Amino acid sequence: MNDAPPFATRVNAQLPDWLVRELPTYNTLLPTAADRVALTNRLAARNYKEGNGGPFAALVVDPATGELISIGVNVVLSSGLSSVHAEVMALSLAQARLDAWDLGSAGGRELELVVNWRPCTMCYGALVWSGIKHLLIAGDGPECEDLTGFDEGPMPEDWKAEIERRGIRVTSGVLRDEAVAVFAEYGRAGAIVYNARGTGSHRRD
Amino acid sequence: MNDAPPFATRVNAQLPDWLVRELPTYNTLLPTAADRVALTNRLAARNYKEGNGGPFAALVVDPATGELISIGVNVVLSSGLSSVHAEVMALSLAQARLDAWDLGSAGGRELELVVNWRPCTMCYGALVWSGIKHLLIAGDGPECEDLTGFDEGPMPEDWKAEIERRGIRVTSGVLRDEAVAVFAEYGRAGAIVYNARGTGSHRRD
Repeated sequence: MNDAPPFATRVNAQLPDWLVRELPTYNTLLPTAADRVALTNRLAARNYKEGNGGPFAALVVDPATGELISIGVNVVLSSGLSSVHAEVMALSLAQARLDAWDLGSAGGRELELVVNWRPCTMCYGALVWSGIKHLLIAGDGPECEDLTGFDEGPMPEDWKAEIERRGIRVTSGVLRDEAVAVFAEYGRAGAIVYNARGTGSHRRD
Repeated sequence: MNDAPPFATRVNAQLPDWLVRELPTYNTLLPTAADRVALTNRLAARNYKEGNGGPFAALVVDPATGELISIGVNVVLSSGLSSVHAEVMALSLAQARLDAWDLGSAGGRELELVVNWRPCTMCYGALVWSGIKHLLIAGDGPECEDLTGFDEGPMPEDWKAEIERRGIRVTSGVLRDEAVAVFAEYGRAGAIVYNARGTGSHRRD
């Protein structure tokens, strides 16, 4: 055993090819909350069909101007890494683009994370460390877990109050029905549920 | 504005050079819990002095054999990404090495995540999605937050029960005093606290 151990030393994740190809055609100004959530719903509906991961997408936006800073989708399957949910990708890509691990320090702007549903436990924590000041979500009820079979993980009881206390404002309920329709379609399609607990057995019901 | 928008499309993070250089000299068999936690304490004590991030380190190990699968340290500062805490790095590097986003599917082994303290909210969630079956930590009291000024984030009240219910066993209290000594030294050194809420203002006390 004199060989160097074969430790991995680098983590790499990237957006799917289809999204990278389309990015230059996207409107980079999304002035309204509905504009932003609509894009996450559209990307979420496509992402799982392309085989990249679950039906989830996220954006980082400057809500003062509507400028789109970054786009993320869930790439757990295509990257082989369980942590690269849509929110982690969007936050990391915004930090890479702005060269700031603390997005709260990026040019005095108060940036927004937009997601097509309430973040899971991991992404909830990732949001708190990112310097993001607003969370805009389509919804936060049990529909996502019930329709998709995904487990959101153990969240604190008063999850909104906990982050509002840390300076992150939450807006929920924008294009909610459209978001739920994506989850329903995903559930009907019987797409693979890739979280570590497998399909169904950890549904809430 | 006909130019392609300058979106970032790739996320890259890597272990620090000092750790990559030393890895080939490490003992890759860590048979006891104390062997494992001792390594996380040692790496945590060094990591912040090297300027990579906070005083945190994590390992993925096969507890049945003691085989070391991956090593992570907090590289928030050196990578410029707020999500690459020690646990996320160790989990991702284990997944890259074993080519399995679900570590619970990796050769029938029940792998362990070892950390020099209780994970923050984000890493707690990352653990749940990783397929890890055991969590081994030096401790889980308020000492880490009190001595370092770091905020662990909003955790569910019964955080241990929540993950035990999901099939992850928790062992806490191994080389606890040594772990606390690292946090105390960090606190005395006045090292930068890099989380998004800044030094001090979000201490528990």
